[in-house]
Amino acid sequence: MNVGFIGLGRMGRPMASNMARKGFRLVVNDINPDAVKELEELQASSAPTAAEVAKKSDVIITMLPDGPVVREVVGGADGIIANAPKGALIMDMSTVEPGTTDDLAAQAKAKGLRYVDAPVGRLAAHADRGESLFMVGAELEDFELVKPMLEAMGTTIYHCGGVGTGTRTKLVNNFLAVASCQFNAEALALSQGLGLNLESTLDVIYGTTAMNGQLKINWPDKVLAGDTSPGFTIDLAHKDLSLIMQAANTAKVPMPMAAAAREMFSAARARGFGAQDFSAMVDAHCDLANIEKPRLKK
Amino acid sequence: MNVGFIGLGRMGRPMASNMARKGFRLVVNDINPDAVKELEELQASSAPTAAEVAKKSDVIITMLPDGPVVREVVGGADGIIANAPKGALIMDMSTVEPGTTDDLAAQAKAKGLRYVDAPVGRLAAHADRGESLFMVGAELEDFELVKPMLEAMGTTIYHCGGVGTGTRTKLVNNFLAVASCQFNAEALALSQGLGLNLESTLDVIYGTTAMNGQLKINWPDKVLAGDTSPGFTIDLAHKDLSLIMQAANTAKVPMPMAAAAREMFSAARARGFGAQDFSAMVDAHCDLANIEKPRLKK
Amino acid sequence: MNVGFIGLGRMGRPMASNMARKGFRLVVNDINPDAVKELEELQASSAPTAAEVAKKSDVIITMLPDGPVVREVVGGADGIIANAPKGALIMDMSTVEPGTTDDLAAQAKAKGLRYVDAPVGRLAAHADRGESLFMVGAELEDFELVKPMLEAMGTTIYHCGGVGTGTRTKLVNNFLAVASCQFNAEALALSQGLGLNLESTLDVIYGTTAMNGQLKINWPDKVLAGDTSPGFTIDLAHKDLSLIMQAANTAKVPMPMAAAAREMFSAARARGFGAQDFSAMVDAHCDLANIEKPRLKK
Amino acid sequence: MNVGFIGLGRMGRPMASNMARKGFRLVVNDINPDAVKELEELQASSAPTAAEVAKKSDVIITMLPDGPVVREVVGGADGIIANAPKGALIMDMSTVEPGTTDDLAAQAKAKGLRYVDAPVGRLAAHADRGESLFMVGAELEDFELVKPMLEAMGTTIYHCGGVGTGTRTKLVNNFLAVASCQFNAEALALSQGLGLNLESTLDVIYGTTAMNGQLKINWPDKVLAGDTSPGFTIDLAHKDLSLIMQAANTAKVPMPMAAAAREMFSAARARGFGAQDFSAMVDAHCDLANIEKPRLKK
Repeated sequence: MNVGFIGLGRMGRPMASNMARKGFRLVVNDINPDAVKELEELQASSAPTAAEVAKKSDVIITMLPDGPVVREVVGGADGIIANAPKGALIMDMSTVEPGTTDDLAAQAKAKGLRYVDAPVGRLAAHADRGESLFMVGAELEDFELVKPMLEAMGTTIYHCGGVGTGTRTKLVNNFLAVASCQFNAEALALSQGLGLNLESTLDVIYGTTAMNGQLKINWPDKVLAGDTSPGFTIDLAHKDLSLIMQAANTAKVPMPMAAAAREMFSAARARGFGAQDFSAMVDAHCDLANIEKPRLKK
Repeated sequence: MNVGFIGLGRMGRPMASNMARKGFRLVVNDINPDAVKELEELQASSAPTAAEVAKKSDVIITMLPDGPVVREVVGGADGIIANAPKGALIMDMSTVEPGTTDDLAAQAKAKGLRYVDAPVGRLAAHADRGESLFMVGAELEDFELVKPMLEAMGTTIYHCGGVGTGTRTKLVNNFLAVASCQFNAEALALSQGLGLNLESTLDVIYGTTAMNGQLKINWPDKVLAGDTSPGFTIDLAHKDLSLIMQAANTAKVPMPMAAAAREMFSAARARGFGAQDFSAMVDAHCDLANIEKPRLKK
Repeated sequence: MNVGFIGLGRMGRPMASNMARKGFRLVVNDINPDAVKELEELQASSAPTAAEVAKKSDVIITMLPDGPVVREVVGGADGIIANAPKGALIMDMSTVEPGTTDDLAAQAKAKGLRYVDAPVGRLAAHADRGESLFMVGAELEDFELVKPMLEAMGTTIYHCGGVGTGTRTKLVNNFLAVASCQFNAEALALSQGLGLNLESTLDVIYGTTAMNGQLKINWPDKVLAGDTSPGFTIDLAHKDLSLIMQAANTAKVPMPMAAAAREMFSAARARGFGAQDFSAMVDAHCDLANIEKPRLKK
Repeated sequence: MNVGFIGLGRMGRPMASNMARKGFRLVVNDINPDAVKELEELQASSAPTAAEVAKKSDVIITMLPDGPVVREVVGGADGIIANAPKGALIMDMSTVEPGTTDDLAAQAKAKGLRYVDAPVGRLAAHADRGESLFMVGAELEDFELVKPMLEAMGTTIYHCGGVGTGTRTKLVNNFLAVASCQFNAEALALSQGLGLNLESTLDVIYGTTAMNGQLKINWPDKVLAGDTSPGFTIDLAHKDLSLIMQAANTAKVPMPMAAAAREMFSAARARGFGAQDFSAMVDAHCDLANIEKPRLKK
């Protein structure tokens, strides 16, 4: 079985590499020749266009920057759907708005192709180590087909339901993960503004239901330790929040806290924090409010 | 040593009872004669006024409904500070705005009295079982004095710093615990609005940093199981959020998500959800948005 | 008739001065001796305490910094209510929360005193020139009594209804006046962020209903007259807001009020108001909050 | 000169009809044959596709439902840009995001075509009567060319600046017009919630700067002229907003825009703007967002 892999960026490159290392026969494509060369050194073959990849593959994986690019590469005039052999399976792992997934899945089905959406949780560093998390929307038999591939790239695989549920679950999950950065920012800014000791405040929060995953797991080694180098940037988090607001407004689900959070991400970007780790939302908020940034004592 | 205990409401009554059962010599006072009688059956004595309690006690504990009542009972013309013997220690365990704590602590100090703020975390059911959590603001030697009393009433005791830090830490902690109900409400309303399966969505959230204490620990047995009987009501949560906003605005800490959350608590109250458990914010939000309420399958 | 005037601050001083100049016989009181002296030069007499002022006056006017001060000066143990002669009228012109007005009015009534709330609109410079605006809550005969006094201090007098309506109307009015500063801030920040010419932008805004022409020009014949047939639907308005948020986020212009508004349009759509005229947002909001819809009497 | 007109919907149909009645030689196109027939009865000719319209016209007007449709009809493989004769002018009157206007204008320029964006203000009923308002982004000579056409369709024409400024100005203007519906909704809901008489409340509001008199009456001589000396300070405005929020929450009237506004006042105070005039909120917001402050040219 040949597996096409299109999109060898910061996430796609280690994901494809891990598949190649675990013995999958890959046909790759990317605009960056260095990335292609790296995969070739791992015994992958390559093709010059997405159309060529599609023609040669039984499963075609896409890991692309955003919805419009996915629409073009998968559904465009010279794209994957137009060129894949009947019965082939397309698995899009990009983060896109649900409408894109739904449209492309319908197009694929009309051409006798199978479609799976499997966006990626966790960070680039996890992808490097083959420790990603996947939220998969797929018919059961399609899920069985892609499962070994996902196991080559990650450690945690959720089958969320039929096609489209992977994309949608990612939005819900990322809302909590991303917006909780502003949520925590407000809490810790308040703590600083009230003159509390950071260590004592965190002790209490960690011991109650006030706790959340970002604050307990990610932040102590990131922003609270003074490390704002990006695992996941504020710019990307803002992009995700924008997709979330778009999906929510389309579904007529009012999200006032999400909306408030997004504007603070916008303010953080305006103030030059966009390229920092999303935990640095607390630095952006404290800067905005003239409050000292919270840092744990070593 | 005599310990005065003023305020035998839903929280104060079991707290005092636990102290009495563990052998503390109490002098109690409350407007409700049934509550007083219950304590007398546990060998506590009683006094007809706060002033009388103060005169007879070395430590005076207050557990009262709000800041204005605390100001009157503790700092009023005929209150505790005016009547307590020199050197006595006042421990206010009510939830009040920091300004109230600061003012009363200063008044107490000026009269040669000691002051501790020790608001209570967790729910009434925990108080019943002597499993409360306390956030204590106190000088070290004062903390040592009250510690055995707190151990009689609860299992988890945080010494947050000097006088006033207990009250402030409670506000920060409660912000995250309370506002996360609206935060989760938006996430689950989005999940419902996007047609996702609740169990699958929660599986994913629980496995990532999107998780928070309310959603993981409290909600599965409360609102998500269809139980909205109050552990802690939306009305009380709204009151806490109001204190939080007041403290934050006084400290010039902008909290846009908190502000958005508070208005949704206000809407929930307007729509008749005020007496339900604060996890029922998700029901209020789904009702507002014409979305089916999320319920776990048995 | 003697008129007591307590509170000669930035607003009270020119107000009292204007009364004195127009021939009212004043008894004044303030902590600032310079202000008292200035009034004495205008033939006012003075008294050392609020209680003394009250004893000597038929009408007692208060213009004080905030609610707690008003509670003390008017309702305190040694305050106006405790000392005014039976039948006297108290007119509080301070800006306070409605509960303060209601409590003090009830206290006054119980002592056989009359009570009027008449907070001030417009700025200090208007007070200097005797051009203030007053929102008066009063029984009709009480209003007749104070009207000449108000005419000595200002040019525009609204009798809003019974006691307490002056204070409440001021809150509603000030909400629009004050919050519109942030509303405008977001609009002009967006204009700047999009690189528009300020003069041209204002030309357009001034020529349309964008400036709250909605409330004055459109609404009286639409929703407030019960006509919610669409000139422009809530659905289309929501679409426009979505474009606006997209443009603003792309330009990194944070717009928290716009974001809050959009989510309420989303809620209105979820609740079935999408096809109605966009002025029907007030119906949607009142529905959401269980409040009667506003309708003008024919 | 032939004028193409593509898009005869609720707005386009009366606009084209008014042009036809005033003697313009139109070539129309729409998917709805009834609309086309109505225009033919007014002596317009028609063409079966946008491409055919473009080939026959010197000026091509588009009035289409949204950005993606405009992108396809104007910029698509078989669209207007691909088919219009060199030197032709395209005027898009649809409401689209600025990026769409910018992209299409650049495409048009590259093919030797001229581009104008002229979105429409006011409602469908105004379009029926030829009383629309237009916000035009155009080079000066292009503006001169389309001006007589716009005069045939409306009464108020603003030349906002170069290409793209019409679209952007519409967004700013519509933000105020549309979001003011929720702004008013909150004010009137509060009025109802506080039990006020609607007519009296509106009387007061209409007589003060509460209705966006701020922007028209106060601001040009204050912040927009660079004068931020306080008539009424941001600190006092924040205090008023705090009273308002307290009253609203007590009355269970949710006010999400008010809450968002108050937090921005809090941020302005934290950043040192508290003692400035409340019109300086726009300076505070631009500072927060790294945007140049708006100032009128002398």
